[in-house]
Amino acid sequence: MNEQTPAPPFDKDPAILIRQATPFNAGPPLPLLRAAFVTPNERFFVRSHGDVPLIDPDTYRLTVDGLVSRPLELSLTDLQAGFTRHTLLATVQCAGNRRQDLIAVEPIPGELAWGAEAISTAVWSGVRLRDILHTAGVKPEAAHIAFSGLDATERHGDHFNFGGSIPLDKALHPDTLLVDTMNDAPLPAVHGAPLRVIVPGYIGARSVKWLGGITLQTAPSDNYFQAVAYRLFPSTTRKETVDWASGMMLGELSLNAVICTPTEGARLPTGPLSIQGYATVGGGRIVSRVDVSTDGGATWQQAELGAENATWAWRFWSLTLALAVGEHQLVVRMIDSAANMQPADARLVWNFKGYMSNAWHRVNVVVEG
Amino acid sequence: MNEQTPAPPFDKDPAILIRQATPFNAGPPLPLLRAAFVTPNERFFVRSHGDVPLIDPDTYRLTVDGLVSRPLELSLTDLQAGFTRHTLLATVQCAGNRRQDLIAVEPIPGELAWGAEAISTAVWSGVRLRDILHTAGVKPEAAHIAFSGLDATERHGDHFNFGGSIPLDKALHPDTLLVDTMNDAPLPAVHGAPLRVIVPGYIGARSVKWLGGITLQTAPSDNYFQAVAYRLFPSTTRKETVDWASGMMLGELSLNAVICTPTEGARLPTGPLSIQGYATVGGGRIVSRVDVSTDGGATWQQAELGAENATWAWRFWSLTLALAVGEHQLVVRMIDSAANMQPADARLVWNFKGYMSNAWHRVNVVVEG
Repeated sequence: MNEQTPAPPFDKDPAILIRQATPFNAGPPLPLLRAAFVTPNERFFVRSHGDVPLIDPDTYRLTVDGLVSRPLELSLTDLQAGFTRHTLLATVQCAGNRRQDLIAVEPIPGELAWGAEAISTAVWSGVRLRDILHTAGVKPEAAHIAFSGLDATERHGDHFNFGGSIPLDKALHPDTLLVDTMNDAPLPAVHGAPLRVIVPGYIGARSVKWLGGITLQTAPSDNYFQAVAYRLFPSTTRKETVDWASGMMLGELSLNAVICTPTEGARLPTGPLSIQGYATVGGGRIVSRVDVSTDGGATWQQAELGAENATWAWRFWSLTLALAVGEHQLVVRMIDSAANMQPADARLVWNFKGYMSNAWHRVNVVVEG
Repeated sequence: MNEQTPAPPFDKDPAILIRQATPFNAGPPLPLLRAAFVTPNERFFVRSHGDVPLIDPDTYRLTVDGLVSRPLELSLTDLQAGFTRHTLLATVQCAGNRRQDLIAVEPIPGELAWGAEAISTAVWSGVRLRDILHTAGVKPEAAHIAFSGLDATERHGDHFNFGGSIPLDKALHPDTLLVDTMNDAPLPAVHGAPLRVIVPGYIGARSVKWLGGITLQTAPSDNYFQAVAYRLFPSTTRKETVDWASGMMLGELSLNAVICTPTEGARLPTGPLSIQGYATVGGGRIVSRVDVSTDGGATWQQAELGAENATWAWRFWSLTLALAVGEHQLVVRMIDSAANMQPADARLVWNFKGYMSNAWHRVNVVVEG
């Protein structure tokens, strides 16, 4: 348990962007990310807060305790034989996705410099969290469902398991799952084997990997990654003087849209150019419109939305056009099915932890004559 | 039935802003709107698309048909005696709220020039729509729940009932109600007596008044007010050349924040100034932070959020400060619990129907020496 393991095949793929070697944090370059609507397991971004634990599936037990009528200790066989299986297409996105765009406004020391690759999509299967909770018996006082991972993390000299919580109503949603497969394969070690949570539409940190325990409680988790990290502060707040408790605990994802191809600084030939990317939103809403500008945001054209349109998955989009010779700033923005829009400028979004970076995404290109 | 009636006491209250006399459309001035967290019935904004029908409660029947196992015809007594009653604190907001801020960008002929008063909050009671639907038996093909009003509206020479629809999952939400009381009083005629829908967090048009029929169907309502009106188009789309079917059908409300006091153009004394307003968001999210600027958006301070914080109600906010003698532009913006932000500029939001106006709200004031 808990020994450092490589993350195959990322360690062999020269295209992969390794943001941190230990713990391992990496994702595919944007054109590769955009190449498949369902991300192959070997390209699915990895966000680790500690070493990857190797867990013996035969001795593995999931505990369910706290405000329940019947505390549970479930083996993998108990889970697989005792509950109806469900499958869900869902995107997982890190709260730190696109942090680089905030770092460009002002440095964010001590946090991973993610581009827009801290997001991927898979078909997950497993059991409904609510079926487990109903078996345990939810006491009326229970309001938050806390997850504890079996990995060992370290922050500021303290060693502890990764953890976090979600509100009860999200835990009872039929699409919140405990999964043991990923794209029809057994869940890879780096993605949380033997069992992880999938909380669709929430920041990735709540989809706790290597799930060891579920605790029903009155308040959100007091784990570092819920009580301190993954909180959102105003742009004016500085780390040195922060009152951590004053930050907004992150949960549901905001809306976002990204240009995957062409990439920043690309030198392009003349002729038809296909601009492609992804767009996402939490809350069960859908991506309703994606607009693309080729003049830095002065004028806009509607992109074509991809045919695949699942509630909890990203939506692909594309637009083919011809650009004149010279420099262009491509910009993308989306609106969701509740008419929410993204902020135009990353300066409006900047926060010292670098979360929820979702200003209009800009890519500068040159069309060569 | 259907004869024009006054809307007491709006017809006697000189403070009320009447946006249209026939059909009757009015709301309170913003300081009066902000005076009570639960809006008194006599100040609750009125949005009418036709005359107010006067319906005999003894002969009234609600029909439920379409994709159901058992079509229903329910009297008020059937509804009141046969189903468990539920109470909900909920804000209702018109999709046209704050249209004036869009009109300031470019005129929007033919639409009501609402200020920020097309919103109010009440305590509603009645029965759950889902209980009615379960009694009728929802067929598996049913995906949309269409409502038909008993009012007579007229558009482009056609006469028909007001109508609209919501997706099945929203209709099955326990907080979607059919109500016959408003703030513990019988539902006033102008607000939909004897029965109206309350779809919390959706545009007001879906909370159909004078409810006569519920039809379960595979597609959204083909009523004018769902199929044509209440669709959102890009800023570049013009009415003369619009393809109506290409617009986004509105449903869930976006986020919004408004300064209610002081009001535009106010001349203020020196000394402590209390800036007060409301903020709202749909989707079951909450208002997490409200920021106020006194310099047109250059710098921001966090407002204090009101103690009342119910999922489907607006949130009041306030900030007390002192301003120097001279001209100031006050600005407010909010972020919701999923870190969504409002667009900064009304030009980004402008659309030829004038819906979903939610750019940062700006109020110009003068502090006199």
